[in-house]
Amino acid sequence: MAREGRSGGRRGRAAANAAEATPRAPYIKRNIPPYEVLGDADLAKIEENAETILSEIGIDIKDDPETIEIFVKAGATADGERVRFPRGMCRGLIQATAPRQFTQYARNPANNVEIGGNNTVLVPAYGSPFVYSREGGRRYATIEDFRNFVKLAYMADSLHHSGGTICEPVDLPVNKRHFDMVYSHIKYSDKAFMGSVTHPSRAEDSVAMAKIVFGDDFVENNCVLINLINANSPMTFDDTMLGSLKVYARHNQAVMVSPFIVAGAMSPVTVAAVAAQSLAEGMVGMSLAQLVRPGAPVIYGNFVSSMSMQSGAPTFGSPEASLVINVGAALARRLGVPFRSAGGFTASKVPDAQAAYEAANTLQQGLLAGVNFMLHTAGWLEGGLAMGYEKFVMDCDQAAMMAVYANGVDMSENGQAMDALREVGPGQHFLGCSHTQANFKSAFYRSTIADNNSYEQWVEDGKLDAEQRAEQLYKQLLADYVAPELDPEIDARLIEFMETRKASFPDSNIS
Amino acid sequence: MAREGRSGGRRGRAAANAAEATPRAPYIKRNIPPYEVLGDADLAKIEENAETILSEIGIDIKDDPETIEIFVKAGATADGERVRFPRGMCRGLIQATAPRQFTQYARNPANNVEIGGNNTVLVPAYGSPFVYSREGGRRYATIEDFRNFVKLAYMADSLHHSGGTICEPVDLPVNKRHFDMVYSHIKYSDKAFMGSVTHPSRAEDSVAMAKIVFGDDFVENNCVLINLINANSPMTFDDTMLGSLKVYARHNQAVMVSPFIVAGAMSPVTVAAVAAQSLAEGMVGMSLAQLVRPGAPVIYGNFVSSMSMQSGAPTFGSPEASLVINVGAALARRLGVPFRSAGGFTASKVPDAQAAYEAANTLQQGLLAGVNFMLHTAGWLEGGLAMGYEKFVMDCDQAAMMAVYANGVDMSENGQAMDALREVGPGQHFLGCSHTQANFKSAFYRSTIADNNSYEQWVEDGKLDAEQRAEQLYKQLLADYVAPELDPEIDARLIEFMETRKASFPDSNIS
Repeated sequence: MAREGRSGGRRGRAAANAAEATPRAPYIKRNIPPYEVLGDADLAKIEENAETILSEIGIDIKDDPETIEIFVKAGATADGERVRFPRGMCRGLIQATAPRQFTQYARNPANNVEIGGNNTVLVPAYGSPFVYSREGGRRYATIEDFRNFVKLAYMADSLHHSGGTICEPVDLPVNKRHFDMVYSHIKYSDKAFMGSVTHPSRAEDSVAMAKIVFGDDFVENNCVLINLINANSPMTFDDTMLGSLKVYARHNQAVMVSPFIVAGAMSPVTVAAVAAQSLAEGMVGMSLAQLVRPGAPVIYGNFVSSMSMQSGAPTFGSPEASLVINVGAALARRLGVPFRSAGGFTASKVPDAQAAYEAANTLQQGLLAGVNFMLHTAGWLEGGLAMGYEKFVMDCDQAAMMAVYANGVDMSENGQAMDALREVGPGQHFLGCSHTQANFKSAFYRSTIADNNSYEQWVEDGKLDAEQRAEQLYKQLLADYVAPELDPEIDARLIEFMETRKASFPDSNIS
Repeated sequence: MAREGRSGGRRGRAAANAAEATPRAPYIKRNIPPYEVLGDADLAKIEENAETILSEIGIDIKDDPETIEIFVKAGATADGERVRFPRGMCRGLIQATAPRQFTQYARNPANNVEIGGNNTVLVPAYGSPFVYSREGGRRYATIEDFRNFVKLAYMADSLHHSGGTICEPVDLPVNKRHFDMVYSHIKYSDKAFMGSVTHPSRAEDSVAMAKIVFGDDFVENNCVLINLINANSPMTFDDTMLGSLKVYARHNQAVMVSPFIVAGAMSPVTVAAVAAQSLAEGMVGMSLAQLVRPGAPVIYGNFVSSMSMQSGAPTFGSPEASLVINVGAALARRLGVPFRSAGGFTASKVPDAQAAYEAANTLQQGLLAGVNFMLHTAGWLEGGLAMGYEKFVMDCDQAAMMAVYANGVDMSENGQAMDALREVGPGQHFLGCSHTQANFKSAFYRSTIADNNSYEQWVEDGKLDAEQRAEQLYKQLLADYVAPELDPEIDARLIEFMETRKASFPDSNIS
């Protein structure tokens, strides 16, 4: 259906064929079980607490009477903007119609991704106003940076998605930059991407541009956009986010409802409380999507950080956040929806050891928890305020390792390799044996960043640290970039649409 | 029994009381389940393959007729130095008498550690000939470095053990440095430690020194030393390692039998094969300990690295090694013995992002696999060739986070925090609520290394990266070090023993 629906034509197919020639998995099919720190009784208790939050404490729906009306019609009660949901109402709505798994279509069908189940889709970081590079230090991001990261994500076999607001193009007007962001994802990549959520009209623009690429009917019946809807935790949604949510759901596009919680500020300081509150908030958004359009694809998202005691700043890669990720994934499985969690998180300003420890902790925990959509897999620095060029390619390297790990243990005859053990025997080496020769090239993941050479060789090579090697790598990648083909007619229609729309209202940097 | 058996006297008790005043867990009691990538059928297949290796291929026992005779008497067959073990023989010997869990006693009983079960003991890295620091670069290690790392490990609440050859004191003769190493562990720390394994006579010296501290009878009936016995993989043991193993087992001291495998060189390239081979080798060593002294404590160790395709160098933090750790831990649980795996592994020469990604991957995987004794938790650089000062304190910070994670999710009323959610409600912040006030100090782990401040604050603080902050930390710790009290009589007897023994044979740097 994807193939018929898209308008890529002959060139699109050629690109798809080229992609098929290089074997690359479009997403990770996990062959390992999810890890769960809590048992069923504890998870049920957290679910019960979420229902208590929804039914007794309630959720504030700000400046959005339409949404309140929708919920009241479905059985909720409203006291001004405070809405309370009978126990089980939101859960029931989600479980009745939300898909457990769905396909997000890319303009290159080889890059379609499966969201949910045993699948994991790794996605670039999202939302930074700044970029960081060794060469340029930290500065405001531009549309040129945005394009660069789209290109790097396009070239990264380990990333399965082009992401969304991969960084904020601060050189463009706030109220028009969504056009250039969506266009860049289409033009410079052929992986799936995300739409704008900063205003309902920008969500409509994103859908309109997607329709130019995929066709009207296809978009109304299939998911081509995944869209990040944050709750204003604690227990609050606003009309901007809910407005965008409703636009996307009405067009059958996926909404990823992610409470944004810095524990201690927007929630209590304990893991079980964060998990219950986040679930309550998430269920409100996901059930609204089902009321607007039953069957609209949804993802339950978690964005959780804890707070520094000293400064009040958010911290990342912490054990408390890891536990919340783990519990959130289990709660999503029990609810029957795909789960989104964090990726290469760090509070570090530079791609140093702090950045890597924190990122690795979050990546590993997300992978083992069984995340389906890992936003922020690559590039994140400074608590999300900066997108790092070097950090991006470092995290891509980790993402590739995660795919190898998720493949699990090969228990075939070849994997057991008893013939090799018999052939070589005690005291000999396996370098030359036939099994090693047959399997060597694919046996071990080959890092793009790590230097495993001897100290002496490393000195001879200039004593480069990981950041310096990563700088060389991203620059080489950008120099080597070749754009995927895009039907010139579609390209022209996208540009015409953007120009017409941009001319129809004045620039603004207010919001 | 520990209290009675040791000779620390009044001062020892004072030190213990001081330690008790600061609440510090002597080891981690995991409140999270182990993660297992393989199910029972696959694990059973790997066990079957290990038995095939032992019964059909056999193990070479080099230059050690006594060990061959012991095994043959127990039912094995020998063809020269090639020994074959009937299916189930080694496993049966281990399961009949090896303890599932045991206590290793420290000279300060507050630092006794439980090895096995749901317990995790985090231990410094082991065996590096070099040290690395920002200030001094990479250079050969000295006894002064050794003492420094013992002091740092003593001060680290997150480490539960003093380790063994924490680095090689290359400035001392090879055949006498074990005296100074064992003495340093006793003198500068009061945590449990490891004995020398480089010659059976050095194992005897280690036991003799332990007896001065703990008393003869106590040592013969309790574990006060854990000792690292490597197999010469593939499928080979030598007389040095087996000689030391037999010495320790005869004195009832623990042996940690760890095949040392760089996959592709010392084993086939596949995870399932590495796991089977490692298990076969480990069972030979552990069953020998049971034959020498039934009930002698043993640990099944894994040291696995994969090989760089380019250089043949070992690589660390790789997904393949992570899978082997996971499978090894599950095999140890099924066998019923404690499990040792790797910690903060890396091939990086400096404590950069590579070092941190690789270390974090290994630490996280070891923790979730359910490791009981994590050797090399802190300090490891350059594939184990260098012990890093900055890396050491960075890894200690990670170790502390692992303990928090292992504590699991607090599901008490306080942990659920429903009162806080009711008190604060939608749209408000939790900073001032009574639950936050009551829990804030202990709610979130506070990193000793991470900088979570704003970019502006970080710039004002000098733009230090993690390595620079770690340098400040380890220097401050060494400046603040205060030695634990040691009974002067014991100290004098240890020094006298060493001097007498050192004078009894000439210096040698041969081996």
